[in-house]
Amino acid sequence: MSQPGRTSRTELKRLPYKASFETSDLHSIIDENLVAHVGLVEDGQPLVIPMTYGRSEDTLFLHGSSGSRLMRLLADNARVCVSIVELNALKVARSNFNSGMHYRSAVIFGEARLLKDEEKLAALDLISDYLIPGRVAEARRMTKKEAAATIIVAVKRDESSVKISVNEVDDPDEDIGIGYWAGILPLVRGVGAVIPADSESQSLDVPESIKRFVERHQADH
Amino acid sequence: MSQPGRTSRTELKRLPYKASFETSDLHSIIDENLVAHVGLVEDGQPLVIPMTYGRSEDTLFLHGSSGSRLMRLLADNARVCVSIVELNALKVARSNFNSGMHYRSAVIFGEARLLKDEEKLAALDLISDYLIPGRVAEARRMTKKEAAATIIVAVKRDESSVKISVNEVDDPDEDIGIGYWAGILPLVRGVGAVIPADSESQSLDVPESIKRFVERHQADH
Repeated sequence: MSQPGRTSRTELKRLPYKASFETSDLHSIIDENLVAHVGLVEDGQPLVIPMTYGRSEDTLFLHGSSGSRLMRLLADNARVCVSIVELNALKVARSNFNSGMHYRSAVIFGEARLLKDEEKLAALDLISDYLIPGRVAEARRMTKKEAAATIIVAVKRDESSVKISVNEVDDPDEDIGIGYWAGILPLVRGVGAVIPADSESQSLDVPESIKRFVERHQADH
Repeated sequence: MSQPGRTSRTELKRLPYKASFETSDLHSIIDENLVAHVGLVEDGQPLVIPMTYGRSEDTLFLHGSSGSRLMRLLADNARVCVSIVELNALKVARSNFNSGMHYRSAVIFGEARLLKDEEKLAALDLISDYLIPGRVAEARRMTKKEAAATIIVAVKRDESSVKISVNEVDDPDEDIGIGYWAGILPLVRGVGAVIPADSESQSLDVPESIKRFVERHQADH
């Protein structure tokens, strides 16, 4: 069930105009952001940790150190809820009650599955190339020891929901014309000037994958 | 127990140099960011939802519609895990294994408590003034009906952990001098030009609270 918002758990009952049922919206929110909050249940208690990720079709890939408690929990077929949000503006209404944000938000439910062998190695490269396309070909290859020190899990989504809030300020009539201001404060993101790490890096051209990343994330907004 | 990182659940066992035990760091991460991911357990399954928030001392305040399933779960004394992350840079090493991010991250554990009456009204204003200081005095006051339509919970923190990753590229010796580039890609945030909502708002001065918000969030980076 990979279409968003179509199960009892993911159907948006309040403000349903904010729901999207489009897989393209879901994938766009995943693909255009950098960090996900991964939630799971540990001894009956909630645990939420920010992580980078990769995506292929309806599967997310998460990686971390084999020394990490979170990764060991994930590797044990944990049920997870992954939340990704993109804040685009503050919507300031004449009242704080009607104020809010412009955002795009995805919530994904699934079960983590530990990857091994070839599937694991492919997913490690996928994550690196997902964050910065072309990076694998331009970086030093991963060693077997490094791969062994890494846990990687796949989360195929069972259910998901997407909320997109872009509505303009919509103060009620009685709030208009009595001297209160309302407006939109756009929140912008970008990439600053690239800083080479050392003299060797200064002497080299900035790699194409890095240039493309900077261009893409500057052009976004 | 409000000092970060000092319980068995929150002690950072891996890469402990990234841990901070300073309450001032924890509060700075909370205060300088706009959205938290709130995780709880629903019928044994994890649920993570992004929310805005306010803070006073060691208590977070979360609000939402009384029609929201999440808010009703929170109002029922849910155990919660609140995660706030601030991404500051991509650290691109010569290998993808040594690459990572510069970030500040806070994870807070506590139990939600439903607020009522005066405590609730005070917290509603606190959240509005926390996001945009001075907003309550400049906006139309909340009505009783609006307050009744809102659920607000307080989460006093029992435990917390703080991770701050700012380390420079630290490629091993054998990766240096063989032609691979490494560097830092700063991730920047800001506020774009304010957009008044309508002709009445265009005719008014931009309120002082809004001007201060724009200045503060532009100056951050």
